Amino acid sequence: MTDPLVLHEYAASGNCYKVRLTAALLGIPVERREYDIMNGETRTPEFLGQVNANGRIPVLQVGDRFIPESNAACYYIADASRLIPSERFGHADMLRWMFWEQYNHEPNIATLRFWTGWVGLDNLTDAQRLQVPIKREAGNAALKLMNDHLNGRDWFVGDDISLADICLFAYSHVAGDADFRLNAYPHVSSWIERVQRQPNFIALDG
Amino acid sequence: MTDPLVLHEYAASGNCYKVRLTAALLGIPVERREYDIMNGETRTPEFLGQVNANGRIPVLQVGDRFIPESNAACYYIADASRLIPSERFGHADMLRWMFWEQYNHEPNIATLRFWTGWVGLDNLTDAQRLQVPIKREAGNAALKLMNDHLNGRDWFVGDDISLADICLFAYSHVAGDADFRLNAYPHVSSWIERVQRQPNFIALDG
Repeated sequence: MTDPLVLHEYAASGNCYKVRLTAALLGIPVERREYDIMNGETRTPEFLGQVNANGRIPVLQVGDRFIPESNAACYYIADASRLIPSERFGHADMLRWMFWEQYNHEPNIATLRFWTGWVGLDNLTDAQRLQVPIKREAGNAALKLMNDHLNGRDWFVGDDISLADICLFAYSHVAGDADFRLNAYPHVSSWIERVQRQPNFIALDG
Repeated sequence: MTDPLVLHEYAASGNCYKVRLTAALLGIPVERREYDIMNGETRTPEFLGQVNANGRIPVLQVGDRFIPESNAACYYIADASRLIPSERFGHADMLRWMFWEQYNHEPNIATLRFWTGWVGLDNLTDAQRLQVPIKREAGNAALKLMNDHLNGRDWFVGDDISLADICLFAYSHVAGDADFRLNAYPHVSSWIERVQRQPNFIALDG
């Protein structure tokens, strides 16, 4: 790898943590640049024009080019590494869990975590307030599906850790921040411990 | 490819159409198996146990194994083909648009299309009704971001069509079904025509 990597991020975001964790497990250095999302630092004309027109972090900068979307940034860093299955079905199966994470897991568990810990449940709009029980149910359904899949399996795809595990770990292991009860999902809980025992593992606040 | 491909699908779904369009552009045969999602045919014990525990279509069957998630199914079919950039940055950039589609585009445009054409706007729950203007604004923001990106570009990534275009095309070209005004996005409109002129293109009802 010749181009230096810079992660445009907000450190407490699980989506940003995914990218740091991928790099850490592979021993790849990434420079970090922090933005205060609560003060609109990712919605400035400079950020929208140069880093990400979508106004969101994380964005991985590769030389003078930019990759938004956390799971795509993880893929760029891990490309051709042990974290990506090389066999065709396993590779597609890994992507399957990564797309599922963005559609079924993140909008429920990560959003409830953000509303609980950053916005404050008392400050939600009416539209958001009506979404709370819907996201609660969908988040629990996501954790149950993960728990069932991990029954008898160590990792989401094949016999070893992959980006599917890293991307799902990011918000699963802090689901308690949004008042999800992880001890109701024992296979998820033991998988979380397996990820945390990986060599070079870093914590979310690390 | 040795394993026969079977697409478990609902033909009017844009997510299922993506998979058929990918296969058609590459000349790869896929057997189709239709489910009536409005009558719960993807929530039966058989479907949940054998095809997809998440109860959703499309699912691509490869021999006796299954790949849920439309964009992962597209990737499996197109693996190592001209529809996937082989260069590292372009490949991650393609995935970036595919993840963005599932997070920022599909939940707004596809959901409003489903609520408009299948559920009926008069039959929405209170929670759904409050989401309509939010999804309308987010859907228009997605189309605007696409339009800005396509200003001066023929395709989303690099100089040729890729899975990013196919996955974004599926619900963009029928956004009018959900009362989005595509003529407000001229670069999106001309890109839609470019996709439709591809050799072996098939229509959503095809």
